[in-house]
This record gives sequence, structure tokens and C-alpha cells, in this order.
Amino acid sequence: MAKKVFLSEEEMPKKWYNIQADMPTPVLPLINPGTGQPIPLDQFARIFPMSLVEQEVSKERWIDIPDEVLSAYTIWRPTPLCRAYNFEKLLNAPVKIYYKNEGGSPAGSHKTNTAVPQAFYHKMSGVKRIVSETGAGQWGSAMAFAGNLFGIQVKVYMVRVSYEQKPYRRLMMMTWGADCVASPTNTTEACRRVLAVDPNSPGSIAIAVSEALEEMASRDGTKRTVGSVLNYVMLHQTVMGLEAQKQMDKIGEYPDVVIGCAGAGSNLAGLSFPFVRDKIAGKKILIIAAEPSSCPTLTRGRFAYDSSSSEKGITLLPMHTLGHDFIPSPIHAGGLRFHGMAPLVSQLVLDGLIEPRSYHNLETFQAGVMWARSEGFIPAPETNHAIAAVIEVARQAKEEGKEKTILFNWTGHGLLDLAAYDDYLSGRLTDYALPQEEIERSLASIDGYPKPPRR
Amino acid sequence: MAKKVFLSEEEMPKKWYNIQADMPTPVLPLINPGTGQPIPLDQFARIFPMSLVEQEVSKERWIDIPDEVLSAYTIWRPTPLCRAYNFEKLLNAPVKIYYKNEGGSPAGSHKTNTAVPQAFYHKMSGVKRIVSETGAGQWGSAMAFAGNLFGIQVKVYMVRVSYEQKPYRRLMMMTWGADCVASPTNTTEACRRVLAVDPNSPGSIAIAVSEALEEMASRDGTKRTVGSVLNYVMLHQTVMGLEAQKQMDKIGEYPDVVIGCAGAGSNLAGLSFPFVRDKIAGKKILIIAAEPSSCPTLTRGRFAYDSSSSEKGITLLPMHTLGHDFIPSPIHAGGLRFHGMAPLVSQLVLDGLIEPRSYHNLETFQAGVMWARSEGFIPAPETNHAIAAVIEVARQAKEEGKEKTILFNWTGHGLLDLAAYDDYLSGRLTDYALPQEEIERSLASIDGYPKPPRR
Repeated sequence: MAKKVFLSEEEMPKKWYNIQADMPTPVLPLINPGTGQPIPLDQFARIFPMSLVEQEVSKERWIDIPDEVLSAYTIWRPTPLCRAYNFEKLLNAPVKIYYKNEGGSPAGSHKTNTAVPQAFYHKMSGVKRIVSETGAGQWGSAMAFAGNLFGIQVKVYMVRVSYEQKPYRRLMMMTWGADCVASPTNTTEACRRVLAVDPNSPGSIAIAVSEALEEMASRDGTKRTVGSVLNYVMLHQTVMGLEAQKQMDKIGEYPDVVIGCAGAGSNLAGLSFPFVRDKIAGKKILIIAAEPSSCPTLTRGRFAYDSSSSEKGITLLPMHTLGHDFIPSPIHAGGLRFHGMAPLVSQLVLDGLIEPRSYHNLETFQAGVMWARSEGFIPAPETNHAIAAVIEVARQAKEEGKEKTILFNWTGHGLLDLAAYDDYLSGRLTDYALPQEEIERSLASIDGYPKPPRR
Repeated sequence: MAKKVFLSEEEMPKKWYNIQADMPTPVLPLINPGTGQPIPLDQFARIFPMSLVEQEVSKERWIDIPDEVLSAYTIWRPTPLCRAYNFEKLLNAPVKIYYKNEGGSPAGSHKTNTAVPQAFYHKMSGVKRIVSETGAGQWGSAMAFAGNLFGIQVKVYMVRVSYEQKPYRRLMMMTWGADCVASPTNTTEACRRVLAVDPNSPGSIAIAVSEALEEMASRDGTKRTVGSVLNYVMLHQTVMGLEAQKQMDKIGEYPDVVIGCAGAGSNLAGLSFPFVRDKIAGKKILIIAAEPSSCPTLTRGRFAYDSSSSEKGITLLPMHTLGHDFIPSPIHAGGLRFHGMAPLVSQLVLDGLIEPRSYHNLETFQAGVMWARSEGFIPAPETNHAIAAVIEVARQAKEEGKEKTILFNWTGHGLLDLAAYDDYLSGRLTDYALPQEEIERSLASIDGYPKPPRR
């Protein structure tokens, strides 16, 4: 068989798949922390275009992808489904390993799949300027690319630790005409509160969210986009899983195991949701969320109502969380450093449809270097978590003498993360054993919030 | 029409095209500077595997691509042929713009097309260790990738100015297990001679060649590979042009203009030679070599015998040259900073089959940013020269009111060259008006060499 399975542009999915139509337990609504009541749609609509608000709450199984978005998608989509023959050989286990290669987008990751429709819908609603936050810079650069495509000015708050580790990310955003600043900046009330406690704060996605929200609230005509967490982001990302299903069909394959790394959930959701649908319908399939041990939202966090920002916030999300005060250790997989998890992914984990596993920093980089030296392409540190899970599944298959077909999401390349590889190869990278007390302490930040109902 | 034309792996060319079979004027042989006589093949064979020596002098039109190389090619090949609709719209000229996108290889450029077969042939001949030189790092990283693939240890001498401007290139090589040092180092006789004259030498490809040659000569079992210049490198690169011809055939197109940037000639050769063949057979087609004004080998150099290294050397090549003493200004398009040009390209320029044009630094970056902001992908600084030529051709087509179909080689992405974009966008980048005396001075270095015969 060939190494790569292509689709033509005509074969691209014309609709996104909305898992809300099929979930055994519906996702809980976002609520107001004061009243405990669901946020009314018109309040959302002050922040997001109505089309996105409708997608957020829709129960329709299929939602049309606008022509303008389809056309922009063709800049890099459909992406190839690849088979990792060399990596299989290296693992010497009874597994076939397929991966959806999302590293070929202009910004280098799957994030453009939702940046483009978000920019489009905002453009349609008359928005001229967008603020957003970014961890490792994957989302910020995707947003800079997409904003430029639709003529929208973009400003990105980038978590300081990543801003310093990954200077090229800022330059990439700048090349597309966007503005990128290190968060905590010194320009918002939210960050001043953080800096008062820790003047050397490495930042966190939650802090960057607070800064972006504050700027949006204080500037007319400025709106905010989000790189993950919300339902409509998961929806947009399903273009990956739908393509992958077509591609696996073409070669008569179906996965036993589907793997995605999990920061806030969008790449995992995008690849796996069409397969979760099959699983709900009775297919036997293991779906793994691979998260970092140093930010173990799903494996050690609590399912609770929490804010996505570091401030108390006006909206609470029903999700697995480590508490919005949680500041992850400055490990390099910046994109997986979020304290929470997408509500849709969280609910599917609760229902046993997705299985979370966590991986240590060093084993993920070891996995990434093994990959680079066998398959050639250098993966993003986030992707390395998925590869570590692939290795674990392969090892188990070998022990059990069972054949497995694995599909995972190769979410992006690591070319702008090479400093992290340098740290790893030079022995400067370490693991971080997160103490339970640290989690308990940050979870205390949600003590006063309403609790999700038992279901 | 779709934005991208794919080929299946089965449709990949199984043979390289050797233009030596069709050239109106045969390329002159490499000679010994002392005797003025052609280098005997057995002397070459001490440096390169016999299979490469045979390819160097072959007059066969088609040369088989070994199965192992074809298999390695499928890691990233066939590459897509893309149409730049957005860039066309921006230029508002009567042109169709197609480009062969070579940025998707693991090392990010077309250089892997020859790195892989060179590593393979060396491996077959029992080589365990390879030294090579690199300018911007594109070649060095391609060689690191290919060496790793075939289990060969790789050491790369990287021109110091690029080593400092592009730290990620070294990290990339390291990730694939290779060793990369800044040239001039302080470890070879050749570099010590350079440093005696200029202790702050920014380096040049010629100096790096000297260092690699010296290490090869002094270490058993170590051989050298070359990223450009030689005939067999041009041969391997024709896989691009052959794919592009099939792809254009598929959509019923044929180019009026074919463009490649030109440093030492390999990407231009690889894309254009199959079209040069058509031109020799009577097709009307303009083939442009786009070189930097600050290293204007074809437009202001002399066709002469010269060495590819900064030392007097044991081999002279018949080529356009600025003299092997030429040290280009430290502009950022490192891959185009070579004082010479591939003999095959040089001969085709002499015969009027390829037209050289030169472009200033600032206009090339302006072209690259225009591209990034319309087509999305950020091009390598080398590629920006080709894009500057596309803009020129489009402008002319508009003035003349003539429709043109343009095909150019998008040789690689600029993700590891973002510091250069930073310099450009921040106004720190300048043009360099190369004085004629500087060229005359460096050309004096070839005064004692035999002259090519008049033909």
C-alpha cells in the first residue's frame, strides 16, 4: 500500500459533524456563576457572531461548511492520511499505524481548521479587529493567518514562557500582519493582579484569556476568537475525522484505536468525534486522550463548573479542570498547558467513550525523536504526547499478541519548537512530578461555584 | 479548477531525466588545474561512489531511480502542483501562476531529492560517515535527514553567518542525529588561512567546501556529498520537473514561462530541464534563473574554469563564476550565496536556453511577504527570488496585454528563516550594491587557470 492516501478537493467534507446530535448524555450548558442559570444566547451573541452561537448549541447532526471556508480550506486541505511504516518497523509490534498529517497547513497545525471559519463568521458580522490568546503559539499563528485572509486585524496575547521559548511564532504572526505580545503584559487589570502576586509569572493560557477578554470589553469593534474549548471549535475540527474516515474507507481499513493529544481537546475531538459516533452506535473502538502528566486535567482534575480565564469570569463551563488558578510548570508542550478541557470531551470522558491517559515530558520527547529519526518529520511537542500513547498501545498489543490498527492525529510540526528538542537532546529537560497538594490548592479557586448536577 | 494537482505514488517518475542526452552544446568536462586535462573517472571514484560518477558523465537520457530511493521519496513525494489564485488576484495581471510546492519535505525544501539518493549510493558503497557543507542550512538539514534514513553519520559545516542567523537549522540536524559546526571553524588548515586574513569572516560556501574536503581527505571511511553544482545533483532534481509536466498535462496546461531561483542551480535545473528539453525540440518557452543582485553569478560573473572551494583545489569546473575568493555580503538568502553555478546550467545559459535575471534583497522580501499574505505559506528567502521574477513577468504581461502561464519552483518554506523576515519587516534589511571592482578583484583569483575553449 502507498504511504499516503489523498482525497481530491472535491471529496472534501461539505458539512461538519456535530456530536451533540448523538451524545448519550447531553453536554451541560454554560452558566452564569452568580445565578447558576444557563447563559442566554443573546449574551453570547454580544461576544460571538450569531452563526457561531447557533453552532454552539445546535443539535443538528450536520452543519454546512460555507463555500468561502471550503475555498480557504483548500489552501492546505484535504490533508493526507499517512501510514508510518518505518515507525511500525521500529516498534516491531503487531500494529498498523496511520496518522492524519495536519502539519502541512500554513501555520503548521490543525488550528487553522477553526481559525478560518471563525475569521469568516466574524468578518460576515462586520468585525474589523480580533483579539485572542495563545499558549505555544499554534493558535495565535493560525488566527493571524486566518485574520489576514479575511482582512481582519489580529492581536494575540501569547503566554510569556512560550513567547520566550518560541520567538519564531511571534515572527510568523508578524509576517501575516498580526500583533503578538507576551502575557502577562502590563496593560490590563487582570495581568496586574497576577504580577502583584508573582512579578516573574511565566503566564498561563488562563491569564492570556483574561487579558484578551479585558481588551475586547474595553474596545469597540473588537471581538475575541477561541482556539479550543467551545463546542463550535470542536465542530469545525471534525473536518479532520471525516476526511480520515473517507481515507480509511478507501483502503478498506478501520481503526481499533484512535488517539489525540489533549490540551483543551480540539484536535482530539476533531479526529475522534466521527469515530465516537460509531462507538455510540456499537463499534468496538478505543479512543485515547493523551495529556501531559504536568497538566493532567482529565486524569487528575475534577469535573466541575469553572472559568476558562484566570479571573472569576462571567461564564462557567462544565468541564474537567485543575482550577483556574492552576499555573502549569513551564514545560515545553505549551499547547497542552490549559487548566480545563472542552465540555464535549469532558462529557464523553464521563460517559466512558474517551479514555484519558497521561505522559511524562521526557517520554514524549523520546517518542518525538524516535519518530523524527524513523518517519522523517519532526513533530510538535503536543503531537509527541499522541506518539507516546501510540508506543504504549503498540507495546501492549505486542504483549498480548493482538493485532491493532491505530489512527492518531499528527497535529503539527515541531519546526518552531526546536529549542525544546535542543533542551531534550542536551539533557536540560526534566519531568515534573505534580504534587497532589498543588492540584488541591488550585481547585480551591472554584470552591464557591455551583456544582454540576449528578446525572 | 482545484488549487492543487496531486499524483499518486504510483504515478511518480521511475527514472530521472538526464539533459546531457539532449544539449546542443555538450557540457565541458571538469579538469585538473595543473594539466588542464579532464579528471579521470577513477580519480572521481575515490571521492564519490561509482554509480554517481557514472551519472555525472552519462549521456543516457533516462536513468533508473533505485527502488530504495523511490520508497524514501514517498515520505514526501509526489509533491503537489498548486495554483496561486490569490496571488494572481493580487497582481491583477493576465497570468496563471502554478508552482511546484517542495516545502513539504521533512527538511522543508527540494534538497532532499538529491540528499536521499546520495546517501543511498554512499551506503551501498560501504560509507559510514559523510561530511558536507551548507549555506542557509537547507542542504545540511536535508543531508542530516537522508543520512539518518540510511544509518550514516553526518557532519555539516555551516556558513557562520547563516549558522548565527538560523539557529534552528542546527537543531534540526541535531534532532536527526547529525553534527553541525559553524564554518570557518578553527579545525582545518583551510579555515585557518581564511581567519588569518579576516578573523571575523562570515564564512562562505566556498570556505565550508574547503573544510569538508579537508576533513574527508584526512579521515578514513569519510566521504563528502554535495548539495548542488554537479551534474548528478541536477539529474536527481529532475524528479520535480517530470512530476510537474505530468501534473500540468493532467489539467491541460503548459507553461509559457518557467522560473527557478538560482544559487548553484539545482532547483532551477530540477524543475526546468524537462522543459528545456521541450525548448530544444522547438517549444517556445522562457526559462528564467532568478539570482540575487548581491551574488550575481550568471548576470555579472564570467564563464571560466574555477574551483568550487575557496582553496585552489584539485578540480576546476566550467561555469559562471565570480571567482572563488568572492565572499557575498551577509544577506539572508544564504542558499544563493555561492560564487559559482552548476556547469549544466551555465552551458544552457551560454546557449541562450536559460535567461538569468537578478533581484535585489528588499524586492525579494517584499515579494515573499506579498505571497505569505495572499497565499498563506511563508516562503524561504531563496524562493522569494523566484516570486520576484514571477511579479516581474506578470507586470510585463499586463503591460503587453498578453496572457501568460507561469510555472515556478516554490523550493521551500521560510519557517526557519523568520529572523530574516523580522529584519525586513523592522526595516533593518538593506540592499547591497555590489561594486564592479569587488567582482574584478575576486575574479583575479582565477587568473592562472586554463580558459575554456571557444565553441
